[in-house]
Amino acid sequence: MATDTSSFTGGSLLLAWQLKGKRVLIVGGGDVASGRIESVLVADALVTLIAPRDGLHPLTKRFIESSDRITYHDRTFAGPEDLVDVDMVLTAIDDVETSRTICAMARALKVPINVADIPPSCDFYFGSQIRSGPLQIMISTNGQSPKLANIIRRRIENSLPEHAGEAIEKVGQLRNKLRERAPGVGGELGKRRMRWMVDVCTAWEMEDLAALDGEMMAKLLDDGWEYNRVPKVQEVGGRPRQSTKTALQKISGLLLSSAAGVIVGAACTALVFLKRRA
Amino acid sequence: MATDTSSFTGGSLLLAWQLKGKRVLIVGGGDVASGRIESVLVADALVTLIAPRDGLHPLTKRFIESSDRITYHDRTFAGPEDLVDVDMVLTAIDDVETSRTICAMARALKVPINVADIPPSCDFYFGSQIRSGPLQIMISTNGQSPKLANIIRRRIENSLPEHAGEAIEKVGQLRNKLRERAPGVGGELGKRRMRWMVDVCTAWEMEDLAALDGEMMAKLLDDGWEYNRVPKVQEVGGRPRQSTKTALQKISGLLLSSAAGVIVGAACTALVFLKRRA
Repeated sequence: MATDTSSFTGGSLLLAWQLKGKRVLIVGGGDVASGRIESVLVADALVTLIAPRDGLHPLTKRFIESSDRITYHDRTFAGPEDLVDVDMVLTAIDDVETSRTICAMARALKVPINVADIPPSCDFYFGSQIRSGPLQIMISTNGQSPKLANIIRRRIENSLPEHAGEAIEKVGQLRNKLRERAPGVGGELGKRRMRWMVDVCTAWEMEDLAALDGEMMAKLLDDGWEYNRVPKVQEVGGRPRQSTKTALQKISGLLLSSAAGVIVGAACTALVFLKRRA
Repeated sequence: MATDTSSFTGGSLLLAWQLKGKRVLIVGGGDVASGRIESVLVADALVTLIAPRDGLHPLTKRFIESSDRITYHDRTFAGPEDLVDVDMVLTAIDDVETSRTICAMARALKVPINVADIPPSCDFYFGSQIRSGPLQIMISTNGQSPKLANIIRRRIENSLPEHAGEAIEKVGQLRNKLRERAPGVGGELGKRRMRWMVDVCTAWEMEDLAALDGEMMAKLLDDGWEYNRVPKVQEVGGRPRQSTKTALQKISGLLLSSAAGVIVGAACTALVFLKRRA
């Protein structure tokens, strides 16, 4: 973890919670609830949604109609029986009393809970998030400034390498193909596999990784992995691309433009003088 | 949440877990464990650390010596009695069998657990993280490519506005002062408070927010909040600052350097000719 040296406390433990096949109970169907539904569906959860139909947000409706992983109940929260076999509870309703009751029940059962807008009833918070395929980024200011969290999120979004999500997806596929070709867990082979993957990710630009297709991956493994080297993009059939300028290149650009100026200036003045002489 | 339109699954639910006053059991004291200790101390947890002294990482030793929130036991994991009243378990030991046993015990007690290097024994993963004061950022590639996660983390670190962490800290302090001055929960006043804070964060640069001190905050509230406006940095005693260069300014810089080059070149050549004449 990259940290500064300050001894800051008051932070959170940022986690990537695993929900594959887990049951998440969502109470409420409005705007906030629709965002929660999206977040947990992305994590492969099985959702039970309890909310009267007349208060459903259009997005919530669309999720109910389109996902086979949502069990929908057109009613309000009924009691402890709604918490049986539930692995996580998210409530997003306006009724503070009911929210607190659900929180107490969940905590008695040791089921993690988030109650929208009531921090003391939350075992965890949601942050400002970016998602692009398998890439997920969360920005948290630990409740100090949601606005600055948003400003920082936008800046990060704008500065993210283009196709970062696709690059990660392709690298994941390449790693799976490599594991098929050179199977086995741990040991020297495992280390060589990891090193080669790191070398590929370091040598290739994000955009080139994103452009990998099945044929190129096969060639990369044939001409690269088998000879323990990292071929250039063109060698495996990738399109050569103008490389991104480094800081050094920008400075040389600046110096070159100054130097060009000196030459142009000198030439013009020389011309003037020579013309005068003539 | 900002998302692309793809229907990606296989993701995680990114969370900011709250550990203030919670008991975290860490089994193991090596390199990985020392990182875990740091992460949970930042989140104000109470740590119980179980690990034989002879295997402690220097950083782990330093944490044990310097933090009064760590209860240290110089021994190996003893059994279920070690899990009594524990809110979270993190293990980072080489003994796969013991790790799996601890995992089974924790799950029976419904205590969230992370077992380093054994994904199926993890209720949650840790991602690549950035921390700067109250600002915390996590980058997860959902296990597809830890190397790309690191590359992206470094790029984000380099592109983060300088002093972002300090800015967030100061904005948090300003908000607290505003709440003292105009107290009350929710309602019209709450909305006005929130709007004014958003306006300040939008109008001021990150560096100016970071430079706020007590006196400036008081003036910002006196001259700003009371009149429902956002004063300029200089009005509250802040130093005027050269604004960050825009792309246009960079181009003008380039043109100016070329122009300077032309003049220098012309002058030198003129000197040469004039000297010859003399």
